Amino acid sequence: MTRTRTLDLAVIAGDGIGPEVTAEALRVLRAAVGDEATVTQTDYPLGATHYLATGEILGDETLEKLAQHDAILLGAVGGDPRDPKLAGGIIERGLLLKLRFAFDHHVNLRPTRILPGVTSPLADPGDVDFVVVREGTEGPYVGNGGALRVGTPHEIANETSVNTAFGVERVVRFAFAQAAARRGRLTLVHKTNVLVHAGGLWQRIVTAVAAEHPEVSVDYLHVDAATIFMVTDPARFDVIVTDNLFGDILTDLAAAIGGGIGLAASGNLNPSGDFPSMFEPVHGSAPDIAGQQKADPTAAILSVALLLEQSGLGEAAARVTRAVEADLAARGATPRSTAEIGAAIAEAAAA
Amino acid sequence: MTRTRTLDLAVIAGDGIGPEVTAEALRVLRAAVGDEATVTQTDYPLGATHYLATGEILGDETLEKLAQHDAILLGAVGGDPRDPKLAGGIIERGLLLKLRFAFDHHVNLRPTRILPGVTSPLADPGDVDFVVVREGTEGPYVGNGGALRVGTPHEIANETSVNTAFGVERVVRFAFAQAAARRGRLTLVHKTNVLVHAGGLWQRIVTAVAAEHPEVSVDYLHVDAATIFMVTDPARFDVIVTDNLFGDILTDLAAAIGGGIGLAASGNLNPSGDFPSMFEPVHGSAPDIAGQQKADPTAAILSVALLLEQSGLGEAAARVTRAVEADLAARGATPRSTAEIGAAIAEAAAA
Ligand SMILES: CC(C)[C@H](C(=O)O)[C@@H](O)C(=O)O
Ligand SMILES: CC(C)[C@H](C(=O)O)[C@@H](O)C(=O)O
Repeated sequence: MTRTRTLDLAVIAGDGIGPEVTAEALRVLRAAVGDEATVTQTDYPLGATHYLATGEILGDETLEKLAQHDAILLGAVGGDPRDPKLAGGIIERGLLLKLRFAFDHHVNLRPTRILPGVTSPLADPGDVDFVVVREGTEGPYVGNGGALRVGTPHEIANETSVNTAFGVERVVRFAFAQAAARRGRLTLVHKTNVLVHAGGLWQRIVTAVAAEHPEVSVDYLHVDAATIFMVTDPARFDVIVTDNLFGDILTDLAAAIGGGIGLAASGNLNPSGDFPSMFEPVHGSAPDIAGQQKADPTAAILSVALLLEQSGLGEAAARVTRAVEADLAARGATPRSTAEIGAAIAEAAAA
Repeated sequence: MTRTRTLDLAVIAGDGIGPEVTAEALRVLRAAVGDEATVTQTDYPLGATHYLATGEILGDETLEKLAQHDAILLGAVGGDPRDPKLAGGIIERGLLLKLRFAFDHHVNLRPTRILPGVTSPLADPGDVDFVVVREGTEGPYVGNGGALRVGTPHEIANETSVNTAFGVERVVRFAFAQAAARRGRLTLVHKTNVLVHAGGLWQRIVTAVAAEHPEVSVDYLHVDAATIFMVTDPARFDVIVTDNLFGDILTDLAAAIGGGIGLAASGNLNPSGDFPSMFEPVHGSAPDIAGQQKADPTAAILSVALLLEQSGLGEAAARVTRAVEADLAARGATPRSTAEIGAAIAEAAAA
C-alpha cells in the first residue's frame, strides 16, 4: 500500500513540561495515523530556555521555515515567571502571540466536554459539550497600547482593543458553521452595554450572518453573565463566539469546569490554509514539575486529535479521542508517569 | 435620648424587581438602625421606565441633588433588553456608570462568602470569604472608544482602556488596607503578559505599596488563571484587587460560586467622602419576574449592611449581616415572598 497522504509537522516542544507532553502527543499521533499518512517532523527549539541561551525568541528565518509545514504542534512555552529576563510576557508575546498573528490564526478553537471518569469541580455540571470559538488576531491582543510618564505619579497607560468587520465576520462565520454542524446553538459573548463600539460591531455581524443560518438559534450574553452560566448551567452552551480577551478568560474557566487544564486542548486555526495552523494544550509550561514525568499529557494528546481532524485525518482523530476517553474512564487512583499515560493511549489509538 | 447621628439617603429603586427589593432593604435598614440615627429618605424615580416616560436618564440637576445625600441605595436599573429604545446599554451607561464616574466611585467593593445554609454550585468550595476590590473609574469603562465606516465591510471599532498612576494607586492602597484588616493576603489580577502597559503600571504600583505593608503577602494571577482558582480553590482568596473590566467579570463569577447573584452585594465607594457612595445588589432588574414578589431581596439587604458599615454604623451593619445569616441558615423548601423575607430579616435585625 502506498501512502498518498503526508503530514509535515513543525514541533515546538518548548519549556518546562512541554517536551514531556509533546513526546507523548507525537507518539499517539504516529500510532493513530499508522499507514494513513507519512508523518515527518521538524523540531524547533524555541521557548524561554532557547531565548536565555541564544537571545532568539522567534526570528524571521525561523518563521519562514515554520510557514512551510502543514501544521505546528506546540507543547508549552514560558520559563520562571520571576526571572527578570522573562518579564512582561516577552516569550508569550514574542513567540506564541507572534505565531498567532504572523500565521493569521484568527480562529482559536477550544472545546470543552466533561469526559467519562473525569471529575468536575461543579457539583452537578450536567451534560457539558461546547466549543469556544475565540477570535485570535484582534481585540486587546493587538499590542496597540502605550504609556506616558512611566514610573511617575503622572503615568498614564492605555491599551486599545482593535476590532474590524473583516476580522469579526470571518470568525463569526466559522462559529456559525460549527454551530450548524453541532447542536445548532450559538452564543455571542461580549460586553455590548459598556464596550459599545466593539460590541456594536460584533452584535451587528452576528445578526447579519444569523440571517443566512436559520437553522442556528442565536443568543447573547454579557461576559460577566456568561461566567455565571458557566458554573450554574454549562450544559446550555453549544458554540460560544467571542473576542480574543473574553475568549482567553472563558476558556480557562471552561477548562476548569471541564475537569482541569490538564485536559484542555486548543487549535489556533488559519482556515484559509495560507499558513499552518498551530495546536497546543491550553496549559502552561509548569516549570515546578518539569522533567519529573508528572505532567498529564492528555491535553497535548487531545490537541493532536484537533490537529488530525483539521488536517483531514478524521478517522485517526476519532481514534485518538476514543483512546483518551477510554483511558480517562479507566484511570484509577495510582498515578502514572507522563510516558505511561502516553503509551497506554497510543496503544489504544493505534490504527 | 437624642439621636445625634443622621443618615440622609437617596433611593433609586429603579426598574423591574428594583422597587420590591429596595423596599425590603429599607425596611431592614430602618429596623437595624433603630434609635442610633435619624434616617431620611428621598426617592429618585430614575431608570428605564422613567427614561421611556420622560426622556430623562440622569440630568445635571438630579445629579446635583443626589450629590447632597450621605449615601445612595440603588435597587436595579434596566428595562427589556430587546427594546430598541434601550439599545446599547443606554441606561447602564447613562445612569449607573454616569453615577460611578460623576461621584468618583473608584472603589467597587464586592464581598463573597458562602454563608451557612447556602448551596454553592461547587462540589467542595471550602471556606470561601474574600472581597474583590474592583477599580471603578478607569480601564475599558471610560468610554474612550470609537468606530469608523460603521456598517460597512471596512468598519473598524476601537475601545481604549485608560489607566493612570493616580487611579490605580488609590484603589491599590484601599485594597492593601482591606487585606491588612482581614487575613493579610492580596492578589493582583490582571493580564500583564499581554496588556503590558496597563499591566506594568498595576504591577509596579502593587509592588511599591507592598513595601509599606510587610504584614500583607502579595501574589499575582493572570485573569484567566484567576477564573480557574475561583472554581477549584476559591478559599485561597482574601482580597483581590483588579481593574474595572476584570473586576466586573470576576465578581459575577464570585457571586455565582458564592451561591448566586441573589446574594451578592456591592458598594461603589468614594472613600474621600467628597461625593456619596452608592450601594447596590450585583443583580439586574430581572423584568421577567418583576412585580410578582418572587425576587430575593437578600442581595439588596446585604448592600444595606455595606452601606451602614461605610456610614459608620458598624453595629447596625453587623445586626443586618447576622440577621441575613440566620435567615439563610433557616430557609426551608417553601418559597417566601420578597416581603416575607424582608420582614423576617428586619425583625431579626431590629436594634
Ligand atoms: C500565554 C498567553 C499569552 C495566552 C493568551 O492569553 O492567549 C494563554 O493564556 C492562552 O490562552 O493561550
Ligand atoms: C450594568 C453594567 C454596566 C455593570 C458593569 O459592567 O459594571 C454591571 O455588570 C455591574 O457589574 O455592576
